[in-house]
Amino acid sequence: MNFKLTIQYDGTDFHGWQMQEELRTVQGELTRALSLIEGRDVTVLGSGRTDAGVHARGQVASVQVEREITPEKLRAAINGNVAKDVRIMKVERVSDDFHARYSAVEKTYLYRIVNGPVISPFWVRYAHHEARRLDLQRMRNCATLFPGTRDWTAFSSAQSDAESRTRTITQLEVSCSEESGEPMIEIRASADGFLRYMVRSIVGTLLAVGRGEMNEKDIERAIEQGDRSLAGATAPACGLTLWSVRYE
Amino acid sequence: MNFKLTIQYDGTDFHGWQMQEELRTVQGELTRALSLIEGRDVTVLGSGRTDAGVHARGQVASVQVEREITPEKLRAAINGNVAKDVRIMKVERVSDDFHARYSAVEKTYLYRIVNGPVISPFWVRYAHHEARRLDLQRMRNCATLFPGTRDWTAFSSAQSDAESRTRTITQLEVSCSEESGEPMIEIRASADGFLRYMVRSIVGTLLAVGRGEMNEKDIERAIEQGDRSLAGATAPACGLTLWSVRYE
Repeated sequence: MNFKLTIQYDGTDFHGWQMQEELRTVQGELTRALSLIEGRDVTVLGSGRTDAGVHARGQVASVQVEREITPEKLRAAINGNVAKDVRIMKVERVSDDFHARYSAVEKTYLYRIVNGPVISPFWVRYAHHEARRLDLQRMRNCATLFPGTRDWTAFSSAQSDAESRTRTITQLEVSCSEESGEPMIEIRASADGFLRYMVRSIVGTLLAVGRGEMNEKDIERAIEQGDRSLAGATAPACGLTLWSVRYE
Repeated sequence: MNFKLTIQYDGTDFHGWQMQEELRTVQGELTRALSLIEGRDVTVLGSGRTDAGVHARGQVASVQVEREITPEKLRAAINGNVAKDVRIMKVERVSDDFHARYSAVEKTYLYRIVNGPVISPFWVRYAHHEARRLDLQRMRNCATLFPGTRDWTAFSSAQSDAESRTRTITQLEVSCSEESGEPMIEIRASADGFLRYMVRSIVGTLLAVGRGEMNEKDIERAIEQGDRSLAGATAPACGLTLWSVRYE
């Protein structure tokens, strides 16, 4: 039986999603728990990696389970065998051709920035803190340059092992609300897929724009020339949350 | 100069507000930081204690500072000398007769309950988890019994050292919203003051009501007889947040 798992994790104490020898990772924890439940080695396939420190509200994984078990019991069994900073929120039976990575059609990430002199203890794990006031209108204007199908080499890690660096960004929106009296800027990015560090590079570029250090022409040039050094710095991991993964 | 501090803390890693030998407390951290800034022993007066594990979004303290310093600089100096799970959000100059405890006229606490099979990693530090579905309407009906001026002995710790156990509850409201697809029940309690464990005893009683283990008559009897054993159990600390303290 093939199951689809919807997973949340607080990435603070994980070395990212992908299994690594001797490091605590989300895939590692889930694989250990599921292998225990199944009594054999199982493979937990994620929709994609998240980096160390990045959170997830809607990561998706798929797993083949041989034992007869209901979705509710499988959820309870996994949650009973992993620490509380990772939780299986939902388990669904899916057809055998469902694959968490290859069946995904769109991913959405959320990046949070507390933009004021003090960051609340309740946000310090989940948002980046920028004390200087950012120019929101400039950030919004520049965000409109990103949606579309382009080669995003300038906004990805040099170590990215992707065969193609062309992706289609379907949404890049900058919004602002109040949290405990401090402005909270949220950057929401959707695409058919993201390269390594891509969201955080885009956010770092928008941060530079908000500080007045970059403008629209700089962004256009970075995209055209595909030169990582022309884009902004990679924004810190703690502000980033994999929000949802969409399937047909 | 007398200053009013508005403070947030994640209570998870604190042994409560009140200073104690060799234990990490919020008052202890702030006193240490302020004594360092002032170069002498200072006294940080809180609006009241919070127990180990209880959080604050709007704790208030007052402190006398001799050195000439602006509110903004004092805030930055304290925040620079304490860990990130406690933050001074606001500093205001106040008249010398302002006293964080005696000048307070009303306190509001919020208690959060995730009421579903799974609690999100993002709420596990800040909400109590109740897997069994609670009867919200019964809880709301019973909540209306609490507002008023009564002796609350049945809803406080036997070790409470308060001279009088009479308090006026001005608000007790039960609301429900959705968080990550799980129902989140919020109990908001306001009074001119609370006895030790009072909010958590009231919440524990409402939890018993929601589970069908207690009813309105049981609550009326507990209040009348002032017998702690007739009220519900003390709800866990992690769900409780000191939300705000009101001054004239």
